[in-house]
Amino acid sequence: MTHFNKVTIIGVGLIGGSLARVLKDKGLAGEITGTGRSRETLELALRLGVIDRLGQGFARSVENAELVVLASPVGSFETVVREIASHLKKGAVLTDVGSVKGELVQKIEALLPDGVHYVPGHPIAGKEKFGVVEATASLFSGAKCILTPTKKTDPQALAAVRAVWEAAGAKVLVMDPDLHDKIFSAVSHMPHVAAFAMVSAVAELNTGTEDYINFSGAGFKDFTRIAGSSPEIWRDICLMNRDNIVEMLDRYLFSLSRFKRELLAGDGKKLEKHLKLASDVRRGLG
Amino acid sequence: MTHFNKVTIIGVGLIGGSLARVLKDKGLAGEITGTGRSRETLELALRLGVIDRLGQGFARSVENAELVVLASPVGSFETVVREIASHLKKGAVLTDVGSVKGELVQKIEALLPDGVHYVPGHPIAGKEKFGVVEATASLFSGAKCILTPTKKTDPQALAAVRAVWEAAGAKVLVMDPDLHDKIFSAVSHMPHVAAFAMVSAVAELNTGTEDYINFSGAGFKDFTRIAGSSPEIWRDICLMNRDNIVEMLDRYLFSLSRFKRELLAGDGKKLEKHLKLASDVRRGLG
Repeated sequence: MTHFNKVTIIGVGLIGGSLARVLKDKGLAGEITGTGRSRETLELALRLGVIDRLGQGFARSVENAELVVLASPVGSFETVVREIASHLKKGAVLTDVGSVKGELVQKIEALLPDGVHYVPGHPIAGKEKFGVVEATASLFSGAKCILTPTKKTDPQALAAVRAVWEAAGAKVLVMDPDLHDKIFSAVSHMPHVAAFAMVSAVAELNTGTEDYINFSGAGFKDFTRIAGSSPEIWRDICLMNRDNIVEMLDRYLFSLSRFKRELLAGDGKKLEKHLKLASDVRRGLG
Repeated sequence: MTHFNKVTIIGVGLIGGSLARVLKDKGLAGEITGTGRSRETLELALRLGVIDRLGQGFARSVENAELVVLASPVGSFETVVREIASHLKKGAVLTDVGSVKGELVQKIEALLPDGVHYVPGHPIAGKEKFGVVEATASLFSGAKCILTPTKKTDPQALAAVRAVWEAAGAKVLVMDPDLHDKIFSAVSHMPHVAAFAMVSAVAELNTGTEDYINFSGAGFKDFTRIAGSSPEIWRDICLMNRDNIVEMLDRYLFSLSRFKRELLAGDGKKLEKHLKLASDVRRGLG
């Protein structure tokens, strides 16, 4: 398995920090440099032993790195890559953990010099709590990790990144970047928008004396948990995968309107049929 | 505290069974009779010691009962009350655990003979697993229980039912039946419809080779967990609280359409503002 003498993690949060821990625990990395926008976070990461060294700026931090991991918010990738591109060494492998692929992958590829190998990735992992203090080598164990190579992707670099994720215990799937964005608009991005919209709708009820949202039970809390996610990150994801998300929102609006129509018509049979279809599918997911 | 010599539970599932366990554990009931549609469930409840006696039909089961609890699906209440009304003894307290109040409360009151005291109730409790095997006296501990008395409600009966729920560890709130239905259309009924519609929308993607829903992560599963609920029960709740649910669905459709509009306009600032409002509210719920 490829051993990386120097690894640079850009953005040492839950995901970047957990991957750093995997690389250390599995002996896949020599020295790990961490960089990012918050000096406080980086110093904490250093104290926690997640990284070995605190990088000075993006460009200098990636010099001589054999593996560079983009783990900052996906909205920052293009800017960061512009900054680091000319400082990456020949033969370096650049990978990322962003939730959007598609056009972003093309943009990043176009910015990189020849001889730098980009392997786009997206681990389907996370938890409610975030930040480097939550980083753990077991985060990816049993999770899916999607790699979205293009025609330009170097097969050896792809194999090396795959091996890292497999060492992390993830199940690696290879997929077209555009298909990735369609699938995740359906099962992640649109549902996040739907949860944000739900909380907005209930919070905006101007009820005077009674604050409805205080009566929310476990169901509402489960349903809207993802609306507690970072607004900045989700703004970026929304804008970067806009077309797919709008298409999925339209499908969702259609499905909601159909329930509303059946409800208005008092059509118990159709209503139950559609409720049952959904209930069966959902129960199948475990 | 009122001691009930004979209690009859109609519908011995998770809620009815758990309440039976509370009544026993706290020494509030002499003999507990269970009745319902499924003989198998009732025999199981008897074996588990949740009830003391298996009732023979609704009407005979309630004879001489001092407390009768309607804990069958809310859609069955009207039919059950028609069947038992003339068999309830003078001074008996009838209560229920249904998720819909409003007009249903009026209908039930109208069916009852003088001298029978109806106290409408709704414990905000439940868990993913259901059925009498899951029944436990601790289910209501720390939960809210809403009682929705009317002008007709006997104060002593109200106090007795309140005492039962307080003994169960619930926090009792008294509320107007119509306000109850408005609040729960917002924080429970509409969100359930939204979750069912979400699973439908994703499941109906006819994608040929890729089954998108298999890529759903923890977020989607949390978001749609409530769509695994019983289609029959939710059909009934939808139809019985139709006007409020349609009004809330309209608000939700408005909120979703606003996000869609901001997304289409590429309006990052407005998008982030609305995402942040929702995120702050959601985080405040814990």
